[in-house]
Amino acid sequence: MQNLDDQPCLIARSLSLVGDAWSLLIMRDAHAGLTRFDEFRKSLGIAPTILTRRLAALTEDGLLEKRRYSERPPRDDYVLTRAGLDLLPVLFAIGAWGRKHRSTKGVTRFFDAEKGSEIDPVVIDSATGAPIGTRQIRIVPPG
Amino acid sequence: MQNLDDQPCLIARSLSLVGDAWSLLIMRDAHAGLTRFDEFRKSLGIAPTILTRRLAALTEDGLLEKRRYSERPPRDDYVLTRAGLDLLPVLFAIGAWGRKHRSTKGVTRFFDAEKGSEIDPVVIDSATGAPIGTRQIRIVPPG
Repeated sequence: MQNLDDQPCLIARSLSLVGDAWSLLIMRDAHAGLTRFDEFRKSLGIAPTILTRRLAALTEDGLLEKRRYSERPPRDDYVLTRAGLDLLPVLFAIGAWGRKHRSTKGVTRFFDAEKGSEIDPVVIDSATGAPIGTRQIRIVPPG
Repeated sequence: MQNLDDQPCLIARSLSLVGDAWSLLIMRDAHAGLTRFDEFRKSLGIAPTILTRRLAALTEDGLLEKRRYSERPPRDDYVLTRAGLDLLPVLFAIGAWGRKHRSTKGVTRFFDAEKGSEIDPVVIDSATGAPIGTRQIRIVPPG
């Protein structure tokens, strides 16, 4: 959805890159440490042609970058860029919504490695400290 | 992508409902106050058949609900449910990623209505107070 790039909305501009479930799940798996084509394919049960396209798009868009891990035969894997790393909070925000509104039976859980507490993601406005959605918002269109 | 419901990952289970750009943009517009089919259609420039399908799915999945606003002729519009309202933080997290990694030229901006400060969304772990991605995470698979 390339035309989303032209919209005055950063949500739309972001979704032009990561606005589909496969791309977000590939990014999730990359955060879990997966780097190789076959690892993503097995984890996601995704058709190879779709995976190839998605990995190429995520690489071109700067969320992943190719890294050569074997010269003979030539083989690349995929590692997170800064932009890819910065997607982790979005993934946790999506998961937190799911924890409220989807079945939580038999789900993977996430804990703070040091403190041992379960991670409880909340999106706050760092300017006020208040969770997003608890205060009135003023929308200012461009121009 | 109904099969995502069976995955042990809440991100996947969430994306089975909101894992496409159109659905998320409809939800964004609903948060901006749009309720009627024609308002969504004009805002998004979306084909009516696609919009009809997406609105039906979002209603069935419990993110929007139909409200009859005219009896003669019978006309419904769409209002946010609790689950739909709770998606606002996800949308802001996506926008915050875009503010870092997409062009911010000519974008809509969001301010705290009372304090006047620009909203700066950050996803934190409310258990530790730390932004997600700044501390080690331990992943615990189900079972």
